[in-house]
Amino acid sequence: MSGRLTIIGLGPGDNRFVIPEATEALASAEALYGYGPYLDRVPQRDGQPRHASGNRVEGARAEAALNHAARGAHVAMVSGGDPGVFAMAAAVCGEIEAGPAEWRALDIVVVPGITAMLAVAAAAGAPLGHDFCAISLSDNLKPWDLIERRLDAAASGGFVIALYNPVSKARPWQLGQAFKRLACHLAPSTPVIFGRAVGREDEAVTITTLDAASDAKADMATLVIIGSPETRLIERDGHRPLVYTPRASAEVSA
Amino acid sequence: MSGRLTIIGLGPGDNRFVIPEATEALASAEALYGYGPYLDRVPQRDGQPRHASGNRVEGARAEAALNHAARGAHVAMVSGGDPGVFAMAAAVCGEIEAGPAEWRALDIVVVPGITAMLAVAAAAGAPLGHDFCAISLSDNLKPWDLIERRLDAAASGGFVIALYNPVSKARPWQLGQAFKRLACHLAPSTPVIFGRAVGREDEAVTITTLDAASDAKADMATLVIIGSPETRLIERDGHRPLVYTPRASAEVSA
Repeated sequence: MSGRLTIIGLGPGDNRFVIPEATEALASAEALYGYGPYLDRVPQRDGQPRHASGNRVEGARAEAALNHAARGAHVAMVSGGDPGVFAMAAAVCGEIEAGPAEWRALDIVVVPGITAMLAVAAAAGAPLGHDFCAISLSDNLKPWDLIERRLDAAASGGFVIALYNPVSKARPWQLGQAFKRLACHLAPSTPVIFGRAVGREDEAVTITTLDAASDAKADMATLVIIGSPETRLIERDGHRPLVYTPRASAEVSA
Repeated sequence: MSGRLTIIGLGPGDNRFVIPEATEALASAEALYGYGPYLDRVPQRDGQPRHASGNRVEGARAEAALNHAARGAHVAMVSGGDPGVFAMAAAVCGEIEAGPAEWRALDIVVVPGITAMLAVAAAAGAPLGHDFCAISLSDNLKPWDLIERRLDAAASGGFVIALYNPVSKARPWQLGQAFKRLACHLAPSTPVIFGRAVGREDEAVTITTLDAASDAKADMATLVIIGSPETRLIERDGHRPLVYTPRASAEVSA
């Protein structure tokens, strides 16, 4: 049997968001790899060993899974959200590119998942209804000035912006700095959404404005969406406001 | 009973991609609304009427569903992909904002789905592994020069770019023009992915480069991904190349 590594997205944290393709791939895998809390979401099965690892050892985890698959096994790697969005699929590809030739002979399958920005957007209305971008605020893997240039490009270009990895213990100031940077381009009233643990029991969605947005509202489990100049709020009695970005642009040709 | 409208994403076209939350919402709805081909993906149920409409009447469809929900019913609207990404959720919000006050009292629920760019990215490897954006190429709803400015901002900012609605019968030249525009910023060797009908039986994924990319490879069922300067190809014997964008940026601070 030729080896296979399937990289599986578990969505935002509840099985209601896991696609059947992922459920089937998890059931048929001979071994599971992944960050411990993600593996904990997968039902235990007899004869299916699981190899948990920490959240800062993506390369080592990918290498271990690839070595296992190269022995002819069907191995699965679990990822939160979508494995292709700031997650394990790119880490696995990086190891394959740098690794032994036999890894290139493996069957590599990526099973998509509901990435955080889609779950948060759904909880808030339709803020991603028009052109948007996704930016990771982590400057562990890229220089901060590149992040600022991308924030400038996105905000001045009229994109709605989803911020992944807004805050961590080691990166306490980046989100506040990003809000300041975005305020150079966007009105104080621009809608901002904080989606924390969306899809889980402790889900919390906060809708505010750019001038009132505080980095204290975010942690590692938070996804932040900043509206474009066209993003609007619909106030409703007895319901949270709906935030949406119209599909039609009102902007007149320059 | 208070009325509810649930807007449901069916993913890219096969039930393997429909999340359980969507399946349950479809089963419990008292009536279904949607574009005909999307409704055709949903199993028929006795006592659950379905109201099919064409693909250019989003506003009228939303209005009909909202009116139905306002009579106290639990109504579902189906959408391809994710309803929040260039799809029905924003159309419904637009109708609510412009409509009668009673529509604001409705329970509005959005159930996310696997949007096309996630499915195409998964089929190709991990091209969305780093900062990326999504742009609709349809100039039905915004001026073409705004689209060009966004292409400029995205390409010069180093974003991977997913193009939705690249081509239609009424919009034959926009994708070719977009490739020309992007070539002002990106190397001829930049990877380009055409994903057609991904997740369906007639799925076709083509990997090429910006200088060789032809708009003839795209139609209304195609999603196009254009790499950033950091997007890479891993050639493999017996397998399609893997396309991926590393999570770490090699770019040095400016």
